[in-house]
Amino acid sequence: MPRRWVADLLSDTLTQPTRAMRSAMAQAPVGDDVFGEDPTVTELQRRVAELLGHEDALFTPTGSMANQLGMRLHVEAGEEVIADSLAHVLRAELGAAAVLSGISSRSWAAERGRLEPSAPLGLMSTGAGPYQVGTALIVVENTHNFGGGTIQPLEAIREVRAASREAGVAMHLDGARLWNAHVATGIPLADYGREFDTVSVCLSKGLGAPVGSVLVGSAEQMARARIWRKRFGGGMRQVGILAAAGLHALDHHVDRLADDHARAARFAKAVGAVAPSVVGPQRVETNIVMLDLSETSWAPAELVDAAGARGIRTYAAGPQGVRLVWHLDVDDAGTDAATEVFVDLLSR
Amino acid sequence: MPRRWVADLLSDTLTQPTRAMRSAMAQAPVGDDVFGEDPTVTELQRRVAELLGHEDALFTPTGSMANQLGMRLHVEAGEEVIADSLAHVLRAELGAAAVLSGISSRSWAAERGRLEPSAPLGLMSTGAGPYQVGTALIVVENTHNFGGGTIQPLEAIREVRAASREAGVAMHLDGARLWNAHVATGIPLADYGREFDTVSVCLSKGLGAPVGSVLVGSAEQMARARIWRKRFGGGMRQVGILAAAGLHALDHHVDRLADDHARAARFAKAVGAVAPSVVGPQRVETNIVMLDLSETSWAPAELVDAAGARGIRTYAAGPQGVRLVWHLDVDDAGTDAATEVFVDLLSR
Amino acid sequence: MPRRWVADLLSDTLTQPTRAMRSAMAQAPVGDDVFGEDPTVTELQRRVAELLGHEDALFTPTGSMANQLGMRLHVEAGEEVIADSLAHVLRAELGAAAVLSGISSRSWAAERGRLEPSAPLGLMSTGAGPYQVGTALIVVENTHNFGGGTIQPLEAIREVRAASREAGVAMHLDGARLWNAHVATGIPLADYGREFDTVSVCLSKGLGAPVGSVLVGSAEQMARARIWRKRFGGGMRQVGILAAAGLHALDHHVDRLADDHARAARFAKAVGAVAPSVVGPQRVETNIVMLDLSETSWAPAELVDAAGARGIRTYAAGPQGVRLVWHLDVDDAGTDAATEVFVDLLSR
Amino acid sequence: MPRRWVADLLSDTLTQPTRAMRSAMAQAPVGDDVFGEDPTVTELQRRVAELLGHEDALFTPTGSMANQLGMRLHVEAGEEVIADSLAHVLRAELGAAAVLSGISSRSWAAERGRLEPSAPLGLMSTGAGPYQVGTALIVVENTHNFGGGTIQPLEAIREVRAASREAGVAMHLDGARLWNAHVATGIPLADYGREFDTVSVCLSKGLGAPVGSVLVGSAEQMARARIWRKRFGGGMRQVGILAAAGLHALDHHVDRLADDHARAARFAKAVGAVAPSVVGPQRVETNIVMLDLSETSWAPAELVDAAGARGIRTYAAGPQGVRLVWHLDVDDAGTDAATEVFVDLLSR
Repeated sequence: MPRRWVADLLSDTLTQPTRAMRSAMAQAPVGDDVFGEDPTVTELQRRVAELLGHEDALFTPTGSMANQLGMRLHVEAGEEVIADSLAHVLRAELGAAAVLSGISSRSWAAERGRLEPSAPLGLMSTGAGPYQVGTALIVVENTHNFGGGTIQPLEAIREVRAASREAGVAMHLDGARLWNAHVATGIPLADYGREFDTVSVCLSKGLGAPVGSVLVGSAEQMARARIWRKRFGGGMRQVGILAAAGLHALDHHVDRLADDHARAARFAKAVGAVAPSVVGPQRVETNIVMLDLSETSWAPAELVDAAGARGIRTYAAGPQGVRLVWHLDVDDAGTDAATEVFVDLLSR
Repeated sequence: MPRRWVADLLSDTLTQPTRAMRSAMAQAPVGDDVFGEDPTVTELQRRVAELLGHEDALFTPTGSMANQLGMRLHVEAGEEVIADSLAHVLRAELGAAAVLSGISSRSWAAERGRLEPSAPLGLMSTGAGPYQVGTALIVVENTHNFGGGTIQPLEAIREVRAASREAGVAMHLDGARLWNAHVATGIPLADYGREFDTVSVCLSKGLGAPVGSVLVGSAEQMARARIWRKRFGGGMRQVGILAAAGLHALDHHVDRLADDHARAARFAKAVGAVAPSVVGPQRVETNIVMLDLSETSWAPAELVDAAGARGIRTYAAGPQGVRLVWHLDVDDAGTDAATEVFVDLLSR
Repeated sequence: MPRRWVADLLSDTLTQPTRAMRSAMAQAPVGDDVFGEDPTVTELQRRVAELLGHEDALFTPTGSMANQLGMRLHVEAGEEVIADSLAHVLRAELGAAAVLSGISSRSWAAERGRLEPSAPLGLMSTGAGPYQVGTALIVVENTHNFGGGTIQPLEAIREVRAASREAGVAMHLDGARLWNAHVATGIPLADYGREFDTVSVCLSKGLGAPVGSVLVGSAEQMARARIWRKRFGGGMRQVGILAAAGLHALDHHVDRLADDHARAARFAKAVGAVAPSVVGPQRVETNIVMLDLSETSWAPAELVDAAGARGIRTYAAGPQGVRLVWHLDVDDAGTDAATEVFVDLLSR
Repeated sequence: MPRRWVADLLSDTLTQPTRAMRSAMAQAPVGDDVFGEDPTVTELQRRVAELLGHEDALFTPTGSMANQLGMRLHVEAGEEVIADSLAHVLRAELGAAAVLSGISSRSWAAERGRLEPSAPLGLMSTGAGPYQVGTALIVVENTHNFGGGTIQPLEAIREVRAASREAGVAMHLDGARLWNAHVATGIPLADYGREFDTVSVCLSKGLGAPVGSVLVGSAEQMARARIWRKRFGGGMRQVGILAAAGLHALDHHVDRLADDHARAARFAKAVGAVAPSVVGPQRVETNIVMLDLSETSWAPAELVDAAGARGIRTYAAGPQGVRLVWHLDVDDAGTDAATEVFVDLLSR
């Protein structure tokens, strides 16, 4: 059994299914989804497609597979995808796009992961001819994980969309935490979704389902993605058990993300008051707090260990950062405890 | 919703989780398995490793992924795997070994999928030097799906094992239905398992779990497989929900496979009595019946349609075969109904 | 410097460019072939395409690359190619089809590499649907190298062609030594060539050019192959130097292959007279002699060493074979010397 | 036949072999280099290894293949290479690293391709653990082609080398035009070469050989690269014909690169005098002139066409650039003619 923490802020992937969610799973009608016969999966796919403003959807065992399928749909072997240099698809999917699909990649620098339209549009290579690599896809991550939960401006997305569409370059949204952007801004999910050819969303982060992501796009794309999902080893059987958790989460766990955001902001305000170089409320947009230790004497691993010794689990992110992620298993008390620990450690 | 069949013999992947299994799933303690913190998964892995006589194990979303990870562990890009020409790894995983891992392959012919040691040993290429493809792995499938549920003789396995070990060639067992071989022969699972470097077993076929397979091997191999599982998009989170179904199946659904075998044999005897060229009890070793239509006037698709029209779902397998698979959702009544339909259709 | 042999029968790849060929190379007009501006390459491509009865052609640095481009044109990642189990594309190209193109493969057994139509047609998988691997390509090798210079019967090729075309499966001819089949049978090259979607031929084996092969097919296919040739690292510049050798060889070195065949046959007759289980004239169809040591006490490596000690270089091929290849640098005297040595060694 | 140009500045890949070079090729002793028996190749490899300060070397048909082999030696499938966003390995090798080797990539922005140590060192990801992509290789291009012939400062290279070595990250030099950096700076080739684990150099650009590049590294690396060269389809036979051209070029065509540099500088000075925003001598470091049209009304393709109509062939490079490359087939008269045309066109 894992150690019990006072507050486990390692990641929102840690969320435990609630009692009600477990009950929904236990009662779900299921079928063999490899043959397209699981009614609960079919319902989940229908509903997510509708929410995102797309024609069809496909359940996948992980967000990585949803992103890899999305990229594969748009990029031929030898073509390239471009994304910011901290994007999950380039940093945290173990190079899968190159391994599984022969997809080349380049990256642009982005302060806190924020999308500035000039960056992808300046990097994009079109009309490449037979000697150069042509850009086939731009990936945008919203909210941006390693950037610290950054919300991408809809106007920036639309500017990139207009220019890339003209150039014949597709766009994929890594929307693992798009729910957080939606709740924080009030912008409808479909307003984001419609700006992209494909979108992945995750059910097992803030939404609290145990397993699963969903890819949305056109029916033709989803039919192709279904075959590649099987080739990638993701064609599961009575998936309705998992899909039922996703449906429950859509009904009950979306709006409550606002609580996570409020707690993260409260933590950031309190810690920023004693360590303004490290964090501040203006840098916390959703449920992720990225501490910047560059002006402190802390190394990330040391701070993680010091907080861990006091029951607060966090994550060393790169050479100068520590990441804390709020989710449905961190309540006000946990937030207070974490705040107290970090105020103490960073006041020294 | 799928159509209700009188007897659905399409595949044993269709099995529905039982009420008791659902209850076990609903109560399972879980954690984030990407971080190795799910106690139920850990317990399932420990138990399957022990059953198969190996050091460690890894849960995967599908049998295909378990096989692909097993192959990847033993074969470098540009080396080859050999298997019989109807093996699931070559026929039914959509070429994944080549796509995901750059693995070349050759095949030997095998009557009903039965392993004859001379076939792999004659095909195996060792001491290949820098110009030729070296064989790195032999895959054996037991029981053999497209061969018709064929059980591989342990002596044949041991003969191949001895010769391949001397040649430095590894062996992987695609044991998706090894449970059936074990129940039919009484040979302990570990007696099979110990003859192979890695073994995959499936929880979602005859065993009736909704999702999941397990790969077993050494701890070092499983550590590498864990990374590749993530790269392939199979690193799921609160997997204990699914693992609990697997544990339940190990406790309650192994021995009962004998019922499936008996029903399949009963069907085969009755149908063979009227159509001896099509099937006979001596050709049915476990839960799969493969009808051979080569001496009849039936085309597989036509027979599948004709039986389907009378409520019996089956599968057209290749140019001359129809496959029927028994599982925990086909009872005596379903067997009787299927027998009646096929006796009628094949007596004409 | 390599050791000087009395007769070097290791491979026909050893051929040295003649004085006249070197002179042709020295005078060749050249240009940058990456931009399609080398007149000598263009002329060679035009001429080989015409000889083989195809629309267009592409020069490649090696026969392996020509075959790999041919396969890539017909097979998508995850689909399969089938060939006999000793085919060069499966045995001697280091698994490149899987590595470079994600191409899966299966093989049929073929006595001495001879094409029997039932073998590929029985193995071929069509109408595979979304779960199984579909056969996209059949590769035939003519003459067959590891089979011992075996000529493929045109009727067998035509039978496979008719059935595969109907099934939508393409055919590629590995014609590295098609020149030998043409000279031995008198069948026009184009009669072979027209039965295939693409054909590779080699200029640097019996034909004696230092470097290069040519792939032929449609203009559309060659345009795609040109891009993949560059991706594979085969887009060379002033290739006319090499192409000039190929043009010279087409003019002067095709008909003389009959001399190689006659010498190989003479050797086989003499050696077969003393060791009839090892070789006989009826088993030698072109310029390759494959000795079968299975009924002798020789191990291949020992026989190669024993012959080498007496100035005759040969090649240990598999667990029971030694291969000797005639070419333009082995004359009557070398043949006599080799005959004497092998008669002596195999008479013991 | 290609059109005859007054001055063909499209690329230095266009260079024709000289009469003396052709003579050297015609007389070269050769052997089968797949078996390592070509004395001229062996001599060229020995000599290039020595020049670059490395243990061993390997001839390849193209610079792309030399780079791809170099990257493959250092990077496992799923790991990443980083390079600047205009690097040849990311822009002009058709995504081969991802396709052939499953190599992921990210890029940094570099003004005119110039290496600033903070860029790769800030992007480099080490200690990545089992969830993130680890940087395995940094590629530096010297001189930098699309940057406009930019010479990389040795001090910058050394700073990156020191930090990357400590982090366990390898370095590869794409030295296709390293000869130009060496001649322009007087820095010995080995002083550059020793800062890298592997180096590729090209014989068929400014050096004027018709075909070929050379990769250098350790003997162990070259042994592995030799196998992968064969797998990539680059294992050619009597390569001494080509290697002889390389040896001739090393003796006669290195120092003369200074002439190309002088002519490029002369052109830049004259054109810069009338169009100072477009080019200037301070922006021309070697044999490449990159015109910056961003403050003119010219589109690159239009300027290329206008110059072409007057006999000067150039290359449209990106949305605002036109590239001119000097080489041994462009003399003073060609330079004067090109200068006159561009002064005229850009004065308007």
